[in-house]
Amino acid sequence: MSRTNKQWLLARRPQGAVQPADFELVERPVSALAEGQLLVQHQYLSLDPYMRGRMDEAKSYAAPQPLGEPMIGGTVGEVVESRNSSFPVGSLVVGMGGWQQLSISDGRGLMPAPRNVPPSVCLGAAGMPGVTAWYGLTQIGKPRSGETVVVSAAAGAVGSVVGQLARLRGCRAVGIAGGPEKCRHVVEELGFDACLDYRAADFRAALKAAVPGGVDVLFENVGGGVLDAVLARMNAFGRVALCGLIAGYDGQDIAIRNVRPLLTSRILVQGFIVSDHLEVWPEALRELTGLVAAGKLRYRETVAQGLESAPRAFIGLLKGENLGKQLVKL
Amino acid sequence: MSRTNKQWLLARRPQGAVQPADFELVERPVSALAEGQLLVQHQYLSLDPYMRGRMDEAKSYAAPQPLGEPMIGGTVGEVVESRNSSFPVGSLVVGMGGWQQLSISDGRGLMPAPRNVPPSVCLGAAGMPGVTAWYGLTQIGKPRSGETVVVSAAAGAVGSVVGQLARLRGCRAVGIAGGPEKCRHVVEELGFDACLDYRAADFRAALKAAVPGGVDVLFENVGGGVLDAVLARMNAFGRVALCGLIAGYDGQDIAIRNVRPLLTSRILVQGFIVSDHLEVWPEALRELTGLVAAGKLRYRETVAQGLESAPRAFIGLLKGENLGKQLVKL
Repeated sequence: MSRTNKQWLLARRPQGAVQPADFELVERPVSALAEGQLLVQHQYLSLDPYMRGRMDEAKSYAAPQPLGEPMIGGTVGEVVESRNSSFPVGSLVVGMGGWQQLSISDGRGLMPAPRNVPPSVCLGAAGMPGVTAWYGLTQIGKPRSGETVVVSAAAGAVGSVVGQLARLRGCRAVGIAGGPEKCRHVVEELGFDACLDYRAADFRAALKAAVPGGVDVLFENVGGGVLDAVLARMNAFGRVALCGLIAGYDGQDIAIRNVRPLLTSRILVQGFIVSDHLEVWPEALRELTGLVAAGKLRYRETVAQGLESAPRAFIGLLKGENLGKQLVKL
Repeated sequence: MSRTNKQWLLARRPQGAVQPADFELVERPVSALAEGQLLVQHQYLSLDPYMRGRMDEAKSYAAPQPLGEPMIGGTVGEVVESRNSSFPVGSLVVGMGGWQQLSISDGRGLMPAPRNVPPSVCLGAAGMPGVTAWYGLTQIGKPRSGETVVVSAAAGAVGSVVGQLARLRGCRAVGIAGGPEKCRHVVEELGFDACLDYRAADFRAALKAAVPGGVDVLFENVGGGVLDAVLARMNAFGRVALCGLIAGYDGQDIAIRNVRPLLTSRILVQGFIVSDHLEVWPEALRELTGLVAAGKLRYRETVAQGLESAPRAFIGLLKGENLGKQLVKL
């Protein structure tokens, strides 16, 4: 059976904001499987902020995305051909299939998708973003019951899980998000204690009012002035899990100007990348999958239709246009 | 026996740089001792950067220095009258006697001075600054043999100990200091592998050349542009012990502009105050006193003569005019 595969390649490195023309759509034949290989037909592609960092040539924690190759990305899909007995035809698998319809794998790095949650959730609350939330909150933030946890980008795939896990641990969860619609969603649908619109003129006063006992844990996804404002409210021995600096991707200023609290409040800041900590994934996924299956961990998805929509959806993600997990349905 | 006591009071809070007129010298009679009290005649007063923070009214880790009261400060001195059997006349004691010739104590917070090092060293390498170096390096920096440790204000009371302890643990020790004289002292007398003059035009290039394997641990006393430059050279999973931000005391900009490495290199930053960690003092002082007594930990002192000289010496300390530990000999 001869198949073709549509792929989005990285055509050039972005200058500032990502443009549709930074990507190129191609269609290529799929080669025959070697012994041990399998072919996955992707159902969903995950779009995540980390991809923006990979598009640059600058030194980062991972090698840059090569030009002229399919964009990397997490996928969930079905095995449609197999010469690998671990993954028979019909298996549902999670992996790094990339921005394309099909991918060939030798099985390394593939995980069977749990059957008690919808497949798309394996890319969100019960996938990499969920484990990111779990790791930063529990292993760096280490919140104790009664403490206050603040999370930026609270309506996103990671932030939405952070606040809910904090609530489940007996903490006050305060989100920060862009615009009243997201803030309403975070409080009313996700159950945070409060959510603040960082674009509002009274943001700093609203933050102060929302954390009457100060802030013990900050889960930071954005950087810049919002981070400074939260640092000013942190309690002694506070912890900052530094997960992302999405404000800086397109050249916004992410300087930390309010440095003195780091010293005077003896704050811990720890940058982290969830893929450094594969040892915690089984425990984290067990908790997250169980919570989703039990209806105790809520999530929202923004789903773009068709592989062709991936660049536009990704640009929207970087601008904060999505609510919850940004996916592409293939 | 009626005695009088000269004291430096905090007369007003500094506006920007500290001025001599921020202090007032007074002479007061010493009251009679109550049961359990003792009178210490100070031999040395310690001057330290933390005092600058206390002079402000801003929220910090400790209450502000009250106006109209003797400036706080560490002292070593001899018990000259005693109604406390734990500290008989003739005892040599280390405590927080303040900027004055004499202090009355009930013994709480006093420590007997070790007899195998000169008394002044109990305020420096084998005192609070030494323990500060020990704590930040060993408990936050956690350097492994072969790693590279960078310390700013390397010619100061804390920095000079950091680099020597790092060398004793098999690390490469690179100092940063102001001016060629201090840098020469740090390398030739203290035995650091290198020391860089942050005022030199080629500072960034010199830093890059001095840390060919990158930086694993930064012990930061200063803040500002020098911190940014070192962050750019840090290795993955580097550690920053944030001990001081002396650049900021008089209103200099201490913003961290180079924030991305905190995330991409998964750096730990931990602000700390040594007085939070009294549990480590015995172990730290045992090591430090032993090293000084054995001639394995070198130190330099800058000694101002007479209580009257304290404000000028303190202002000089804030400007970096001292080499090593700044003391006042009473």
